[in-house]
Amino acid sequence: MAEDSSRAFTWSCPPLFRDSDRILLAHGGGGRLMQQLLEKLFLPAFANDALERRHDGAVVEVGGLRLAFTTDSYVVRPLVFPGGDIGSLAIHGTVNDLAMCGARPLFLSAGFILEEGLPVATLERVVGSMREAALAAGVALVTGDTKVVDKGKGDGIFINTAGIGLVEASQPIGPRQVRPGDAVILSGDLGAHGIAVLSVREGLEFDAPVESDSAPLWAPVQALIQAGVELHCLRDLTRGGLSAALNEIATAAQLAIRIEEAKVPVREAVRGACELLGLDPLYVACEGRFAAFVPGEQAERAVEVLRRFPVSAAAEIAGRVEEAPAGTVILRSRIGANRVLDLLSGEQLPRIC
Amino acid sequence: MAEDSSRAFTWSCPPLFRDSDRILLAHGGGGRLMQQLLEKLFLPAFANDALERRHDGAVVEVGGLRLAFTTDSYVVRPLVFPGGDIGSLAIHGTVNDLAMCGARPLFLSAGFILEEGLPVATLERVVGSMREAALAAGVALVTGDTKVVDKGKGDGIFINTAGIGLVEASQPIGPRQVRPGDAVILSGDLGAHGIAVLSVREGLEFDAPVESDSAPLWAPVQALIQAGVELHCLRDLTRGGLSAALNEIATAAQLAIRIEEAKVPVREAVRGACELLGLDPLYVACEGRFAAFVPGEQAERAVEVLRRFPVSAAAEIAGRVEEAPAGTVILRSRIGANRVLDLLSGEQLPRIC
Repeated sequence: MAEDSSRAFTWSCPPLFRDSDRILLAHGGGGRLMQQLLEKLFLPAFANDALERRHDGAVVEVGGLRLAFTTDSYVVRPLVFPGGDIGSLAIHGTVNDLAMCGARPLFLSAGFILEEGLPVATLERVVGSMREAALAAGVALVTGDTKVVDKGKGDGIFINTAGIGLVEASQPIGPRQVRPGDAVILSGDLGAHGIAVLSVREGLEFDAPVESDSAPLWAPVQALIQAGVELHCLRDLTRGGLSAALNEIATAAQLAIRIEEAKVPVREAVRGACELLGLDPLYVACEGRFAAFVPGEQAERAVEVLRRFPVSAAAEIAGRVEEAPAGTVILRSRIGANRVLDLLSGEQLPRIC
Repeated sequence: MAEDSSRAFTWSCPPLFRDSDRILLAHGGGGRLMQQLLEKLFLPAFANDALERRHDGAVVEVGGLRLAFTTDSYVVRPLVFPGGDIGSLAIHGTVNDLAMCGARPLFLSAGFILEEGLPVATLERVVGSMREAALAAGVALVTGDTKVVDKGKGDGIFINTAGIGLVEASQPIGPRQVRPGDAVILSGDLGAHGIAVLSVREGLEFDAPVESDSAPLWAPVQALIQAGVELHCLRDLTRGGLSAALNEIATAAQLAIRIEEAKVPVREAVRGACELLGLDPLYVACEGRFAAFVPGEQAERAVEVLRRFPVSAAAEIAGRVEEAPAGTVILRSRIGANRVLDLLSGEQLPRIC
């Protein structure tokens, strides 16, 4: 392999998009358009097992070790919101993606894209939050990069973090491990992160201000592993909220997921804000909540373990997995009516993370 | 470690910047201002051994394995230039940072920040280049993320790649391993990447168009390791060019680096363009060139190994390391005059990578 530059490559991107097609905000929204971009462009280009597994991170083997590897860019607007800022978010998001692989988060990288003219004080605040969040999550930020773009070509601060974790779960975790009969456990109440960000963006005032749920999730996941709970799939409920997460899993597993609305925890203030704003909390992003798919008979024990941790004290068994209709998420409302919980085509809340 | 959110943190960022301080393009330029940001903000915040080593990537130990971990964001403008585009650059840059750690590049992540309105065809082209570059470099892109920001809040495509490599070098590689008596080897001619990008940006036409030198560098580095050459330090000559790389190393090692101008390879077309544009090729970025610090007595053999590879066929011994004056880079010109080769205060070429 002295020099590869002369190799001829035959791959060319199939013409799946029209010439006139342009990127929309919704391509980054966790809904149908993002899935399309993934399926038509990224997966065919980089085809490999790890990507095909369609999980929050890749599990790769290096020298006999099972490592989890993941990345996320953070473009939240505004940079600071009740309960956090882009810095703490950039640590929690990546640490949680590793946790969703059943991996102990070890090392993070950070890449900053700064806009010319950004007050250095803002950067100092954000870096301070990253430091605190990394310490609290027990990870070391070991490598980084800073780029600056001209004024008007960025938006203050964008941060990318990538992370390496050591897989502690003994079984593979992912959508394809989900089985009929699995219980769907939610680790806590939904939508607080999205509403917290939106409240600042839209200048809303609530009687009781809603704080983001942004938090690290490895501690409760590790406790589940150590308690011997068989984790089929874990998924944090970020972009697109519970609905996007369950739809991705139902599609990848080709199974049906049935959820009881009465068992989905939503705080009163969040519910009120959602009504006011015309949002459905099942589609609103969290940054410290996850869904766990475990064998039905282990569900009670899993909830018991989760409730020992403040971050997952409100855990509930919210649904179950069935054979059919494959690839579908069905919500049973409080009054007993069933409706299909679909992926959004558009974008409900841009730049929420 | 049930829940860490209640922990009190006492760290606060020391007031090293003035309230009125703002981020300038030069903070991302590889010169003095970027060093300042690193030393005053990032290093104190995330203090750890890996960061303190001040190398292109971190070497960390996981379960007895020595892994290299690195990240870079790419914001090059324009997105496409002679000899490459932001996609191939994003693969080569990160693969090369791993190679500079003496590590075989294994896995990459990719995080895209797309601007609303980007033609999908542009993204397809860039993803196609990433695919080809990853195949040629022997790495798998195993995990990714896409965010979209509103029109006018980004600039087409920004890409972050992070990479994991397995260290094959038996000795640590880094600025602190550099010793008096070491030879400084340059793997090839300087400045082609910067001039290629600038030629499109400024609409320049040359008789012979200058193509970027962007290329993967692991093959020649691996050959040096396998030939038993003792590699004290490796550094790719990106932002800030040869001058920034040597200054960082001289400062970290507290040694003097002496370079012979006559031994620094620069292509005629690049030299001509630099004269026209008022640039010094010693400060212009490459994306497929590196400097190697090896014991003086092994230098000839190292050059012989490097010349077997097209990407490093023009390798030269260009200088040597001495005790004093510590922290200084000195250039001996063709007519025998010595001058200090300093870090730039400002930014010569913004958004070159």
